[in-house]
Amino acid sequence: MKLKIEDVDDLCTGAAFLGAGGGGDPYIGGLMIKQELAAGRTIEIVNPDELDDEELIIPTAMMGAPTVLLEKIPSGEEPIRALQVVERELGRKAGATMPTEVGGINSTIPLFVGARLGIPVVDADGQGRAFPELQMETFAIEGVAGCPLGISDEKGDTALVMTDDNYRMEWIARGITIRFGGTAYFANYPMSGAEVKRTAVKHTLTLARRIGDIIRNSRHRKKDPFDELCQFLATTSYAFAKVVFDGKITDVDRRTSDGFTLGSVTIDNPDGRCTIEFQNENLIARADGEVLAIVPDIISILDAETAVPITNETLRYGQRVKVMAVRVPPIMRSDAALRQFGPQAFGLSENYVALT
Amino acid sequence: MKLKIEDVDDLCTGAAFLGAGGGGDPYIGGLMIKQELAAGRTIEIVNPDELDDEELIIPTAMMGAPTVLLEKIPSGEEPIRALQVVERELGRKAGATMPTEVGGINSTIPLFVGARLGIPVVDADGQGRAFPELQMETFAIEGVAGCPLGISDEKGDTALVMTDDNYRMEWIARGITIRFGGTAYFANYPMSGAEVKRTAVKHTLTLARRIGDIIRNSRHRKKDPFDELCQFLATTSYAFAKVVFDGKITDVDRRTSDGFTLGSVTIDNPDGRCTIEFQNENLIARADGEVLAIVPDIISILDAETAVPITNETLRYGQRVKVMAVRVPPIMRSDAALRQFGPQAFGLSENYVALT
Repeated sequence: MKLKIEDVDDLCTGAAFLGAGGGGDPYIGGLMIKQELAAGRTIEIVNPDELDDEELIIPTAMMGAPTVLLEKIPSGEEPIRALQVVERELGRKAGATMPTEVGGINSTIPLFVGARLGIPVVDADGQGRAFPELQMETFAIEGVAGCPLGISDEKGDTALVMTDDNYRMEWIARGITIRFGGTAYFANYPMSGAEVKRTAVKHTLTLARRIGDIIRNSRHRKKDPFDELCQFLATTSYAFAKVVFDGKITDVDRRTSDGFTLGSVTIDNPDGRCTIEFQNENLIARADGEVLAIVPDIISILDAETAVPITNETLRYGQRVKVMAVRVPPIMRSDAALRQFGPQAFGLSENYVALT
Repeated sequence: MKLKIEDVDDLCTGAAFLGAGGGGDPYIGGLMIKQELAAGRTIEIVNPDELDDEELIIPTAMMGAPTVLLEKIPSGEEPIRALQVVERELGRKAGATMPTEVGGINSTIPLFVGARLGIPVVDADGQGRAFPELQMETFAIEGVAGCPLGISDEKGDTALVMTDDNYRMEWIARGITIRFGGTAYFANYPMSGAEVKRTAVKHTLTLARRIGDIIRNSRHRKKDPFDELCQFLATTSYAFAKVVFDGKITDVDRRTSDGFTLGSVTIDNPDGRCTIEFQNENLIARADGEVLAIVPDIISILDAETAVPITNETLRYGQRVKVMAVRVPPIMRSDAALRQFGPQAFGLSENYVALT
């Protein structure tokens, strides 16, 4: 499937929805890929089930502080150089690239790389949403090695990181990212087509595009976008979604610490109060002592009227919002997956209970 | 020339002298190489003037906080892995290794690598003393590229850093070192035998050994070790040395900041007061408004009786000391060299005046 220029905004809206409040605003990435398409380049999105088992796939992404990204615009060469560092280490060219995370800006980086290098982009990722750290990948949970990791900045500097511990890969790459000025572009988890089929969360780029399409069009069709989203998600591997709270934002507590955006948002309505805690992404929604939804299920705060997702950088007092929760696919809530990105991985004391 | 086990302590004493108060205590490195020699391995030290012009030389060293080194003992594999990262990137094996700095522990790391890999160690370095940062090398001043840089820790993790800016090489490698836990081992400035001849400070390993030998033996020969040192240094490329102050330490102000040991030491005698400022290494010695010696000339604080060098970690109130200054060779005080590691590179306002 070739990505059309008119689909880009929908894909970005859906990526913001799947970003669960974090993941970085896909706006800049959307501009970058529209520019590529306008220049006549093509972006081919391929079904993971149709990959050649022997093909080499090298995922590409951005890491660091989304707030820094807004002032330190990528030239576009960064993720390409990162991918080439991995290619050089492996002595082999990538047949395709892929997102490591579909939520937020990282849905767009591999699309840009695919356009520039003329290679397809696999319709799948390793998070099925957004998570803050590099070891939080279904690829890792299912046994794919994270390294070699290639990383690059806008000056042309690169590094190749080699470790067999995916936590240390995250730790070292995060340190390099800080030295690169707060954002960097990387390629890691190089794998075969067979490994993609076995370890990825599939069809998530097209999922993002459909979510964006529903949010944009439901009003024109005089449908409620929240109902439409829930009905659509019920037909996907995510299987279940619902609005867990609606009201007005009455408090936002947000701070930047250790390279993360940490805090909470309070939403009130006449019947009660909902508090959502976040570490880049929304982690848990509570109301009156009850857990409404908890990570890894997706918690997204949407404009109460348009259903446009609001990322945590832009939450503010007085916004009227609905909180939508989405149950994640089974591959993302296995015991191994919950150890990697379940509530305890974020320091929460509550156990995971799938959204019902 | 084969290094003998009985020469190791002398070489370490001389390396501490050339460390100008910093460079890290060579004690642990000395133990490591004595163990190699006791196990029957050989350490061949070769004259840089006799190198094959086409030979590949890859220097090896340790970086980070000397205070951390005391508790995070290297396994010995770290600098070897770092060298192998560079070899892999270049697609070529090193014919020899070499110190990047002769002052402090980094005189010993390449000797260990040479013993383990069975390759010779070039009797030369890129600092002729100790300096705190990776771009402060005569290699860099004379146009040798610092990258590829290989870096490794005791867990077996490695990184390859590629940048054409030696300041950024230092900046990125320092960030990785912090993530590696405060110390790391690296290989950089890979160069040909012809480049070593053109850019290195020569014969500095044998210089260190001779300095250590003089300090150890002068008492047995009933000679004054300070006179002996000055007489010997006059016959080398350093050409001139003298005692610039003697007295008792009356104050030590020492703090750790940004990965450096910063501070000053005050030495008093009946006729006046000398204050020495340091950033790891001693930078400037002043007495009564007069500059006694200034970087890049070497300022070493020695025990007043034995002439054993005292590194800045072990300075304390009440020590009776003599301050010896050594003029560095011409290659280390060219205009280009002074830009790299002259007084202004350390934030001093005084200009360099060679010791007379």
